[in-house]
Amino acid sequence: MRERKWRSRPKARRSHGRPGDRGARREPSDQVVLYGWHTVSAALTNPQRRIRRLFATENALRRLADERITVPVAPDVMRPDALAARLTPDAVHQGLIAEADPLPSPAIEDLPATGIVLVLDQITDPHNVGAILRTAAAFAVAAIVTTARHSPEATGVLAKSASGALELVPIVIVQNLARALAGLKARGFLTVGLDSEAPDDLAEIALNLPLALVLGAEGKGLRQLTGATCDRLARLDLPGAIKSLNVSNAAALALYIASRATV
Amino acid sequence: MRERKWRSRPKARRSHGRPGDRGARREPSDQVVLYGWHTVSAALTNPQRRIRRLFATENALRRLADERITVPVAPDVMRPDALAARLTPDAVHQGLIAEADPLPSPAIEDLPATGIVLVLDQITDPHNVGAILRTAAAFAVAAIVTTARHSPEATGVLAKSASGALELVPIVIVQNLARALAGLKARGFLTVGLDSEAPDDLAEIALNLPLALVLGAEGKGLRQLTGATCDRLARLDLPGAIKSLNVSNAAALALYIASRATV
Repeated sequence: MRERKWRSRPKARRSHGRPGDRGARREPSDQVVLYGWHTVSAALTNPQRRIRRLFATENALRRLADERITVPVAPDVMRPDALAARLTPDAVHQGLIAEADPLPSPAIEDLPATGIVLVLDQITDPHNVGAILRTAAAFAVAAIVTTARHSPEATGVLAKSASGALELVPIVIVQNLARALAGLKARGFLTVGLDSEAPDDLAEIALNLPLALVLGAEGKGLRQLTGATCDRLARLDLPGAIKSLNVSNAAALALYIASRATV
Repeated sequence: MRERKWRSRPKARRSHGRPGDRGARREPSDQVVLYGWHTVSAALTNPQRRIRRLFATENALRRLADERITVPVAPDVMRPDALAARLTPDAVHQGLIAEADPLPSPAIEDLPATGIVLVLDQITDPHNVGAILRTAAAFAVAAIVTTARHSPEATGVLAKSASGALELVPIVIVQNLARALAGLKARGFLTVGLDSEAPDDLAEIALNLPLALVLGAEGKGLRQLTGATCDRLARLDLPGAIKSLNVSNAAALALYIASRATV
């Protein structure tokens, strides 16, 4: 498990688009639900993650013991169907559900000015954000920057889709993305926005570290101010009849291209 | 809209894993439901797609008219909430739902021995298969080969995730994947299976066209016989702590690498 290189801060409360409820007080909803083998076992091995409760099948507990993963709380041992009943019908628990504290969200100023950061501009689908986190962990991305509003919480479907990556890639939650980009630029990051209409191919432009790759929502793309704040805009070169990808697929290609260009 | 280069065949009936119902008779379930702007508008402009019914909002009909897209049936004009009631709660119809015939499934022998083909080994998640189709269309993939069993039907969520790509990338439905791979090899295809445990990096091995890239299910990977039938196995080089990607993200990277290696 990679060590976080900055001090923890209290997590900024998320507003879910409801103005006025962005208080500092921690409410009962400020708890995350993690399920699935990779997601929960990664959380159990992350010293930064405080587990409150663990619901597990006997098989899953045996597998955790086999893999020498310590369970920090007395687990509630359950049958698979009782576990399933705690989740939505399409959720696959694989024998493990944990209730836990959210992880601390570092600030832009706390990020080391190295490597690649992914910036997500109002990407709302938790499957997509989870897949992006997983791919980010595969490419050793330093952090993901996302807005407090119009982005899914790091729980449930997102955590499952991330397949353990939630424990590996810090998420910086900001109120204002243009200000966050300005902060990254002040720290020396080259900021490059992905835009399918941009004239330049990402694989053809000069890239350097530290690098922030900025991805917009599918359909809508980057918001106007986000695009205007980026140092450069670039597109992915796609030879076929469709010119835009699922956003997690676009993130994977952008990370691959940027990783090779900045070795 | 790209023209299909081979003759149509009656679509092989899918069994959904229930033995014994793989008859030739066309049953009422042999109809697909398409929803979402890109998905339905692409279907309306595909001369191969027979639309049976169209449910649409006034706004969507106006937009179709603006874009000079002909509606081949008298549409059922509805309010957005009446459209939504025809779908599951999380489905986003964007004003359009169509009921249509499935597209014909070509046979392996009918595929032109050119370009890149993607072979899917029991990838079951319709979001993933849809995203793979979309990315395949973006990379001008010649066809997708998939099994009749243990793969989702080309309807609903899959079609929505494909964002119109269902009309662009032919899907070859086979009963036996190892036999299909043998058929591709006989036609001159180099068959390369993606395997995160393989010693060779896909970007480092010699690739040539025609090329079949074979992707396994997440978690399980390629089935033993599938892997053994491939000419080569290769992994994606991932520098981070997580060594496997969401399968649609893996498909995107593999297609990018293969496209550049075979220009």
